[in-house]
Amino acid sequence: VIDVHAHVVPAELPFGRRPGRWPVLEVSGDAGTLLVDGKPFRRVRAGGWDLDRRVDDMAGDGVEVQVLSPMPELFSYWAPATEGAAFCAEMNNWLAEAVAKGGGRFLGLGVVPLQDPEMAAAMLAQVDELGLRGVEVGSNVEGVAIGDRRFRPFLAEAARRGLCVLVHAFHPPQWSQLRPAVVANAATFPNEIGFAAATLVMGGSVPALPDLRLALSHGGGSFLTMLARLGYAWEGAGEIHGDVPEPPERYARRLYYDTLTFSTEGLELLASAVGPSQVLVGSDYPFVPLPAGSTLAGSGLADDARRAVEVDNARRFLGLEEDPS
Amino acid sequence: VIDVHAHVVPAELPFGRRPGRWPVLEVSGDAGTLLVDGKPFRRVRAGGWDLDRRVDDMAGDGVEVQVLSPMPELFSYWAPATEGAAFCAEMNNWLAEAVAKGGGRFLGLGVVPLQDPEMAAAMLAQVDELGLRGVEVGSNVEGVAIGDRRFRPFLAEAARRGLCVLVHAFHPPQWSQLRPAVVANAATFPNEIGFAAATLVMGGSVPALPDLRLALSHGGGSFLTMLARLGYAWEGAGEIHGDVPEPPERYARRLYYDTLTFSTEGLELLASAVGPSQVLVGSDYPFVPLPAGSTLAGSGLADDARRAVEVDNARRFLGLEEDPS
Repeated sequence: VIDVHAHVVPAELPFGRRPGRWPVLEVSGDAGTLLVDGKPFRRVRAGGWDLDRRVDDMAGDGVEVQVLSPMPELFSYWAPATEGAAFCAEMNNWLAEAVAKGGGRFLGLGVVPLQDPEMAAAMLAQVDELGLRGVEVGSNVEGVAIGDRRFRPFLAEAARRGLCVLVHAFHPPQWSQLRPAVVANAATFPNEIGFAAATLVMGGSVPALPDLRLALSHGGGSFLTMLARLGYAWEGAGEIHGDVPEPPERYARRLYYDTLTFSTEGLELLASAVGPSQVLVGSDYPFVPLPAGSTLAGSGLADDARRAVEVDNARRFLGLEEDPS
Repeated sequence: VIDVHAHVVPAELPFGRRPGRWPVLEVSGDAGTLLVDGKPFRRVRAGGWDLDRRVDDMAGDGVEVQVLSPMPELFSYWAPATEGAAFCAEMNNWLAEAVAKGGGRFLGLGVVPLQDPEMAAAMLAQVDELGLRGVEVGSNVEGVAIGDRRFRPFLAEAARRGLCVLVHAFHPPQWSQLRPAVVANAATFPNEIGFAAATLVMGGSVPALPDLRLALSHGGGSFLTMLARLGYAWEGAGEIHGDVPEPPERYARRLYYDTLTFSTEGLELLASAVGPSQVLVGSDYPFVPLPAGSTLAGSGLADDARRAVEVDNARRFLGLEEDPS
């Protein structure tokens, strides 16, 4: 099993002792707490920063390979772009070292300072040189959806380099209206990634970049729910047919989706709506304690579809020629 | 067939000639345009204001009874509360007159100035006296979700009076990020009503008010997609078990949902997830040209479920003792 949605939080974060919003990880034994602005933002299990613990957890969870990406709170899109770029460069180096230490157990997705799309595109050279498979990006950058046209040259550069892009639900606008955080996440992350997917398709970036390998976190969230209505809207919106020449369902089947739907029914629906070839195992390790290796247990997927979801689709998404395990 | 989601836009709107944000309908023959701040907001077909045309359209669409509610843009939650209350009172009088003229073809849902929840609760007396069946409310009021605790006394008063509440997706935060409007609606309305539903359940208002008859527009939008994850979140959020004693799926089956999912698959999924007893025909007339009478055509619903969705559930939701047709 390859798990494409697994986060890291280095114990020593870049700029972790500077004043301001730069995140800090406080570690006490097995317990970590990410501080943002000096306030506890989220607890982190030891596997978040300790690679040996991570490998033990993977063995217990039935996962052969994890694709490491930073915890989204580390994107730091709020920062001045040059500082953000320096932060991302350090994170990418950390990821590359982790991959090297992993002896084949780890692959990596880097981060880039999307608050400056040109700088982000340029930084893909570092991501590429470090041997990372692609990048993780937020569903929005300081409130601007990732499907906004300003991000298209960046996505085009990722496609040109053959780097994949994992879009992760990030800072949904209504998050602060529910408590506690676990409930707010449940009520807003699926909507947020669904909206991001709609902007990527209906805004024209997915239609314009057929070679881009793009995955959506959280099973694409509400994207599937809105797809029929997007199709109805597309029919009536001739003015966008230049940018979006085919109905949105067509493009939905070009994207990848992780399995993080929290139900077997949701997973089966996803596979049937977009095709089992577009589904990737994703666990949100170390934040969600559901073992990735048994993601498909109890699902009605046929053996070949299961093998595709567990291994082959991820290899295709990641641009791997040979089985990395 | 009873259509519970059908909007009106009176040709002569309250305050329609005052300067400011008060909406104005410009009518030229069969074509209407709602102006907001002097700018075209949305086109309206003649049935929006002309009751004879509406009855003709209903005959063509196979609808016996329409439940009239104002176009959501008329909520006017932005206005000072006393002005909003005066606007709502006029709208409610217009609705009651339309119902009286309809000879049994129309029922009505009023509006209330939720920018002042106490004033809104008090205005339910007028709604009740006019014989309207309940009220239509926005999914949020100036950005505050309808599940916020401040609206609970209002919802409790509706329950006490036996008035039903139709929650309609309204002013989603990300709406302006996509164009044209029909595409923005498709990408944001389902999310918006889904989030509102989550706040109503996880914020405790639905658990606290077992007698409240509450319906969600647009088939509840993304609410079903997030329900499994809300269940996972509920398990881990012991601090809300006082306000939400049962898992969210339980409360989801207490709410009503209209059929406006834009696909037969979506409709079947809805009926299977929440039970066919909770589904109501809703068309969004005059804004969506899909005939309400054939909403269930092609669906796999059994005959008794179909009869329930087309008539009986609506009568129960509306608190009717006898068949109004």
